[in-house]
Amino acid sequence: MQINGQHFHTIWAESPNSDSIKIIDQNQLPFHFRLKTLKTFGDAFSAIRDMEVRGAPLIGVTAAYGLFLALCGPDETELTEARLKTFCDEMKTARPTAINLAWAVDEMYKTLKGISNIETAKSMAFQKAEALKQQEIEASSNIGDHGLKLIEALSAKKNGDMVNILTHCNAGWLACIDWGTATAPIYKAHHRGIKIHVWVDETRPRNQGSKLTAFELKQEGVPHTVNPDNTGGHLMQHGMVDLVLVGSDRTTRTGDVCNKIGTYLKALAAYDNNIPFYVALPSSSFDLSLNNGLSEIPIEERNADEVRYIEGKEGKVQLVPDGSPVANYGFDVTPARLVSGLITEKGICQANESAINELFEK
Amino acid sequence: MQINGQHFHTIWAESPNSDSIKIIDQNQLPFHFRLKTLKTFGDAFSAIRDMEVRGAPLIGVTAAYGLFLALCGPDETELTEARLKTFCDEMKTARPTAINLAWAVDEMYKTLKGISNIETAKSMAFQKAEALKQQEIEASSNIGDHGLKLIEALSAKKNGDMVNILTHCNAGWLACIDWGTATAPIYKAHHRGIKIHVWVDETRPRNQGSKLTAFELKQEGVPHTVNPDNTGGHLMQHGMVDLVLVGSDRTTRTGDVCNKIGTYLKALAAYDNNIPFYVALPSSSFDLSLNNGLSEIPIEERNADEVRYIEGKEGKVQLVPDGSPVANYGFDVTPARLVSGLITEKGICQANESAINELFEK
Repeated sequence: MQINGQHFHTIWAESPNSDSIKIIDQNQLPFHFRLKTLKTFGDAFSAIRDMEVRGAPLIGVTAAYGLFLALCGPDETELTEARLKTFCDEMKTARPTAINLAWAVDEMYKTLKGISNIETAKSMAFQKAEALKQQEIEASSNIGDHGLKLIEALSAKKNGDMVNILTHCNAGWLACIDWGTATAPIYKAHHRGIKIHVWVDETRPRNQGSKLTAFELKQEGVPHTVNPDNTGGHLMQHGMVDLVLVGSDRTTRTGDVCNKIGTYLKALAAYDNNIPFYVALPSSSFDLSLNNGLSEIPIEERNADEVRYIEGKEGKVQLVPDGSPVANYGFDVTPARLVSGLITEKGICQANESAINELFEK
Repeated sequence: MQINGQHFHTIWAESPNSDSIKIIDQNQLPFHFRLKTLKTFGDAFSAIRDMEVRGAPLIGVTAAYGLFLALCGPDETELTEARLKTFCDEMKTARPTAINLAWAVDEMYKTLKGISNIETAKSMAFQKAEALKQQEIEASSNIGDHGLKLIEALSAKKNGDMVNILTHCNAGWLACIDWGTATAPIYKAHHRGIKIHVWVDETRPRNQGSKLTAFELKQEGVPHTVNPDNTGGHLMQHGMVDLVLVGSDRTTRTGDVCNKIGTYLKALAAYDNNIPFYVALPSSSFDLSLNNGLSEIPIEERNADEVRYIEGKEGKVQLVPDGSPVANYGFDVTPARLVSGLITEKGICQANESAINELFEK
């Protein structure tokens, strides 16, 4: 999508097989637009851990490039099974919740397993990372096409009046490679000239809503309003929301949706006010091994300083009094019963085991 | 309650009938403890409007002192009905949502109506303001005694294990004169040696939770943890909350509760997880003229800059990108069906018309 009128992806190789992978440093947005170069496995690992890249699909693709970069190290003369396994196992620890990380690493592992020649391995790793990237772009675009139909239907129901969509966190193109997940239908609808407006939850503590979603919507010219996370219930009670659209970091085979902390509260409010609550996600965000999202998905606890301090345009300030303890859970789980449907690249399905199975059989 | 080991009220007169009313400037907390002197009607009005004092009961008492100060002006030689009405009407416009403001102003009006001698009026106004203050202290203390029984019962049910209470915004003694509303049962339980821990919603956009509730709990030595507003649902899903306890800015005769924006989301989560959700409020926070909280209570929209910028220890920083619009609704309404009970100075009652009527007949 666009930044200052120029088309960008969130990650790209400077040239084929080059050990120079570029990312947009998302910790600097929206006040500074800065690119960063990843040259080593460690660079990719810390870009994920420190959230210079974030969002389930982008984390996966960055991990894939990171495994390519691992093979570019000066000491890598031969790829052994043990060495490959070490890299893969370590990369999976960069963030615990998004399943795409493990998924992408496993895809890389399957591609590289049994190859010992380092040049062959490097070349295949690069190609696979590029392919995973391409796959995510297509998944996002297809999610956009499927979700567009929902927005078109809401617009028709309102006789072309503004469709108001509430989103939480950033499931935008900055969380993916292009288009986004939750934002893909929004961009497609906007490009088609449908009147839409997006309520952007600021998404404490890291404010990915106000800092990233608002930034990217503004760059694409989509009408939007930033609001504190506390606001969504009030908006829904007063008919100001037609659709809630969020992403997911991991969704079980039963349709339980793990996403940014606070998503569950919006799902409850949508349910209480008869407002459709949809989750947009690529297949790579499903964890079909899990039955129960609440008991089985590990919830990342992040550093208390993310709540204690906040980074704004002018720098960092302290919000919590000295000596008051802080909790910082990164995600929560929305039970399938509160989810109206899942928008995937394969189509829209209900959030239950048989519908999800049917989708994966397509 | 205590600040640095010394007992404070949130508002007090320096001496009887003195036109020097002291407040704690709550916009400076928790990083600076500064007192401020109100000398005129305008001082009191702007202290309320600019939230140097906030919280429904404290707003009411400040308005009462403000009407006393109005009579202390050098040009006030006689109190006329028209003049009294002008002061009262204007004072009511300082904040729109908390009913205590109108209630306290009406109490002052009733006291002063028909008195023309300015010295008599001043003296009666001062006495009435002091009486309203005393009444709020007693109401808070009684709320504490009634709510304490709930906490004692939860503690017994858990065999003396920690009782975890989640609160939203600041319905603490800083919102009242002493004790608080939602915090009164907490302080009473803590003083009684019951093991309690408070989850403090930071309460964006003004962060009254992290800035005021955490501050006052810490000053009283009550164990607590600050968390982003998004966190409560996750905590409740995982058995980490035994009771939700909040205040109210206005409650209808049918039990609909208007409180800080985001309260409704916590009520939904409590209901979904079978956790008791109680509202602590003095009688002065009821608006018995209203039937339907959602359609009848005016919701204050505050300045967008409260969301766009945040004030921390080191100063103010910008959070939202330039040019992105912002919404800032101050309150929401929790329908009575989600409220387990109302804790008032008269006792605990269910959130419905007949129970509330019965309470007021006591």
